[in-house]
Amino acid sequence: MTDRTIRLEPLTRAAFAPFGQVLETEGANHYAINKGMTERFHDLANIEIGGENGRPLISIMRTKPYSLPLAVSLLERHPFGSQAFFPLSGRPWVSIVAPDAGGVPGRPVAFLCRADQGINIARNTWHAVLTALHEVSEFLVVDRGGDGNNLEEVTLDEPWLVIES
Amino acid sequence: MTDRTIRLEPLTRAAFAPFGQVLETEGANHYAINKGMTERFHDLANIEIGGENGRPLISIMRTKPYSLPLAVSLLERHPFGSQAFFPLSGRPWVSIVAPDAGGVPGRPVAFLCRADQGINIARNTWHAVLTALHEVSEFLVVDRGGDGNNLEEVTLDEPWLVIES
Repeated sequence: MTDRTIRLEPLTRAAFAPFGQVLETEGANHYAINKGMTERFHDLANIEIGGENGRPLISIMRTKPYSLPLAVSLLERHPFGSQAFFPLSGRPWVSIVAPDAGGVPGRPVAFLCRADQGINIARNTWHAVLTALHEVSEFLVVDRGGDGNNLEEVTLDEPWLVIES
Repeated sequence: MTDRTIRLEPLTRAAFAPFGQVLETEGANHYAINKGMTERFHDLANIEIGGENGRPLISIMRTKPYSLPLAVSLLERHPFGSQAFFPLSGRPWVSIVAPDAGGVPGRPVAFLCRADQGINIARNTWHAVLTALHEVSEFLVVDRGGDGNNLEEVTLDEPWLVIES
């Protein structure tokens, strides 16, 4: 019997690398602009925009919180573009992603993201829905608009259970 | 003699329309996703990416604060792309933009932006540098990378003076 329990782990660049990029100042390439008044932490995400009439979008998502332990039975991916999320509400949040296993999601990985960490989920990478904790939270989102069906969803027969680390 | 004093005014969609878009939930097109858990305030910005090998970037800017009254003598614009800023530090901030007047900046407009308001400055629109108030502040930035010189700067002989409203 497969262990269906997944413990939260800290979000790091190395651990997230198979799924996309972490948006954070720590460890980023940076340089001074505006006569030294501003430091630019530069080019944190690989924004992927494909498909017919693809174009980048900026949106805001306002989401209700989830509680742990969290049963995850729905995973989705976007074949035409990446999807970046940055928290605006100053609270830690959770990102749940999964490797592909022959066209369906494999065993997920659940990251506890700090309030100052965003992510960019690579094109066609399995993930659960945006997961805020504790309170209604807002996120800035950069993803792909355009024509065609940019959403593939899989509902699992048996859910995964995400628990605290 | 021209009055060189500019009073801060509230950031609104209508007032900012000649310069780009306001990124805020209020008044935005929105719809429910994720089985009703999340509201998506959709497609808030007209992201413009031009020039050779142009591509969208996500960066973070960490900037020292300015004080009011603020003398503004440097204005710049980006011929190949738009530039979006969203505050991450939970504090009001200032956006200073200007219409074009025959290839040089005309009289600027200075907006006091709420902590939950971002902006997207349209391609080739004159603006002053990112203006935080009171404390070191961070902003998420979506702008254009690629080849070519995407920066035009003008230094004024006589500065404008931005004051509180």
